[in-house]
Amino acid sequence: MRADLERVDARVEQAATIDYPLASGLVLDIVKAGGKRLRPLMLLLAGRGYTYDLDRLVTAAAGIELLHTASLIHDDTLDRASTRRGKPTLNSRLGSGAVIMIGDFLFAQSAILAAATGSTRVVSIFAGSLGDICDGQLREMMDAHRTEQNRADYEKRIYGKTASLFAGAAEMGAVIGDAPEDHIQAVRQYGSDVGMAFQIIDDVLDVTQETDGIGKPAGNDLRQGTVTLPVMIYARDLMPGSDAQRTLDAVIRGEIEDSAAIDDVVHAIRASSAIEETIEAARIFTEQAKRQIEIIPDPQSRDLLAEIADLAIRRVS
Amino acid sequence: MRADLERVDARVEQAATIDYPLASGLVLDIVKAGGKRLRPLMLLLAGRGYTYDLDRLVTAAAGIELLHTASLIHDDTLDRASTRRGKPTLNSRLGSGAVIMIGDFLFAQSAILAAATGSTRVVSIFAGSLGDICDGQLREMMDAHRTEQNRADYEKRIYGKTASLFAGAAEMGAVIGDAPEDHIQAVRQYGSDVGMAFQIIDDVLDVTQETDGIGKPAGNDLRQGTVTLPVMIYARDLMPGSDAQRTLDAVIRGEIEDSAAIDDVVHAIRASSAIEETIEAARIFTEQAKRQIEIIPDPQSRDLLAEIADLAIRRVS
Repeated sequence: MRADLERVDARVEQAATIDYPLASGLVLDIVKAGGKRLRPLMLLLAGRGYTYDLDRLVTAAAGIELLHTASLIHDDTLDRASTRRGKPTLNSRLGSGAVIMIGDFLFAQSAILAAATGSTRVVSIFAGSLGDICDGQLREMMDAHRTEQNRADYEKRIYGKTASLFAGAAEMGAVIGDAPEDHIQAVRQYGSDVGMAFQIIDDVLDVTQETDGIGKPAGNDLRQGTVTLPVMIYARDLMPGSDAQRTLDAVIRGEIEDSAAIDDVVHAIRASSAIEETIEAARIFTEQAKRQIEIIPDPQSRDLLAEIADLAIRRVS
Repeated sequence: MRADLERVDARVEQAATIDYPLASGLVLDIVKAGGKRLRPLMLLLAGRGYTYDLDRLVTAAAGIELLHTASLIHDDTLDRASTRRGKPTLNSRLGSGAVIMIGDFLFAQSAILAAATGSTRVVSIFAGSLGDICDGQLREMMDAHRTEQNRADYEKRIYGKTASLFAGAAEMGAVIGDAPEDHIQAVRQYGSDVGMAFQIIDDVLDVTQETDGIGKPAGNDLRQGTVTLPVMIYARDLMPGSDAQRTLDAVIRGEIEDSAAIDDVVHAIRASSAIEETIEAARIFTEQAKRQIEIIPDPQSRDLLAEIADLAIRRVS
């Protein structure tokens, strides 16, 4: 698969090339620093399970990766993050106006790639995923600092923010591979479940890692008033009216901003059983994902897709 | 055409409805305040010149209008404009993060509409126009405060910023109307020429109107270091090394920020022959546009499209 992923990278770099030396260098830095290329890999493997139409799969995979990159760039503007993938964000090096436009430019390039597959269904999946991502990010903003949230709110939000694009990547692969409709639906569900697991584990790492790979402090979500699953589970087990419960609510509402006080809450969550229970919730999604792909006839694609599902959990074990 | 445009409006409002009461109200305000709906009208008329497949034309027209709205919303973030279409911008009422996301959400909705036409060619035109818009806006940013610019730079910039979406709207109409390929190309060129004329006249109005419809001060472009055609023509006729020439350069470079001093430059441009010469440049585009559409068989569509072309110039006469 390595050679095929390199073809995806080449398409991504070609599409991300902008006609302004300064901006182009910065964008290519971000694109090349790359992530794990999980979404393109999932798309290629989903296609390989059926008819491996490599050129169209590479085109769609490059579109998915660029859409993901564009959404990270806009997301960094919201977070005012100063590093991403170990590199300075565009944000820290260009005005916010230019960053918004560069994100839009990459959205456009990703849409051009989706259209280049020649499949309106691929384009619909693409556009739907973009809509879901925005919906997830808007929900995260609107839900911030609200103490009254339940697990359904959380799942709706992370589905939009993360799982939808995994689902779309897997579905596109199966669609381009010309899989039967019930297989397409199963593969899409697999992608969605894996995406849910990845985001849940990201939310665990946000609490447990002192400094995660992108340079944010532990408990960054909580500091922004975002209530993730480990926080919800921790909150559920607190005695109503207790000091711990009132402190947590005040942190979520943004009434406590003192960093040391928030650190104490983060440590309390880490020491609780909420972490293990959250990891278990992610594990349920990965197991569900692996059951979905039993339908895929090609054993090698199936095994590799199962490995991707396991990757989510491996980051905390 | 009024009833058909109302169908477009209904599709736009439906797609722009967001599941958050606050944001939804603000977005619908912007969408409903509407502009002149020139792009949807052009698209419908281009289609009507051939096969009037109303449902698909309305879908595409709603997509074009939403794409335009999304790009205005992001543009307002760049300009930090506080009003648009006489209404407060989202920007002045929500955090910039939410505004970026709402713009992205509308991009997604517009892409969903483009895909819903079922035509990959329509989607390609859509994605290409979005790419051109971003390219135009990036060029405007990168070219700002540069005194060394020529008319080709200017035309490339306004093609991306404005004309490309008009070109795309007209082309989509002809494509959905199943026009012959040479007609599609002529209609697309018509749209492009009309868009160029509209932007050139906008650039004239920026200099000549004390307060234009969107609440910006006269000479707003110049204040931002954006060199438009009237400024270029005015500059061309200044004696090199003269006071006027050095003052203009200093304003463009952002070395002079005093509002009264910039007002003097704006008044000098107004009093020069640059305004009439710029309007003439726009007129050349509208005449070219009208020649392009002579190819359209249906006389009524042709006449209405010619009227749209004339509208550009009518704003200054």
